[in-house]
Amino acid sequence: MENKGKLWIVSTPIGNLEDITFRAVKILQSVNLILAEDTRRTKGLLTHLGITEKKLISLNEHNQEKRIARVLEGLENGEAVALVSDAGMPVISDPGYSW
Amino acid sequence: MENKGKLWIVSTPIGNLEDITFRAVKILQSVNLILAEDTRRTKGLLTHLGITEKKLISLNEHNQEKRIARVLEGLENGEAVALVSDAGMPVISDPGYSW
Repeated sequence: MENKGKLWIVSTPIGNLEDITFRAVKILQSVNLILAEDTRRTKGLLTHLGITEKKLISLNEHNQEKRIARVLEGLENGEAVALVSDAGMPVISDPGYSW
Repeated sequence: MENKGKLWIVSTPIGNLEDITFRAVKILQSVNLILAEDTRRTKGLLTHLGITEKKLISLNEHNQEKRIARVLEGLENGEAVALVSDAGMPVISDPGYSW
């Protein structure tokens, strides 16, 4: 049980790229995998933040079933995973998410 | 008119001190005056952020009339002012504010 991973839900800027918290940056730097609504947009944010060579995969309504199985497996194996949307707080206050 | 100041409403952490944005820190560093709900609490945050020797005055329901006159005068004279509460976003989603 002690090897269980963590899933972080990370809020990202909705306009000004400096509207991101220190903790969000630290988490994005530290995780093994980032699940992004649109990997190209998130890659742009990560590049701005100086975070490179991070494993980044898309998670959206078209691939969620397959992806979630992969993520759960990773979490079981101790992976640290971050979920981000294009802008805002995934799931909670993100107009782009339908979940 | 071009000398008019600015009033920034700045969100501060509600728990983890790293939950503050890069832009919030930059604004707190740059302003001439910070209006705080409780100056001691805000001083603690500023110290944590490495922001020292900043003019800090309280703004609360007991002194708001007098303070607001002072702030408006400062804004007219081109001052940059930040408003913070003890935690959260002043006025908008801050349970501590009655305004």
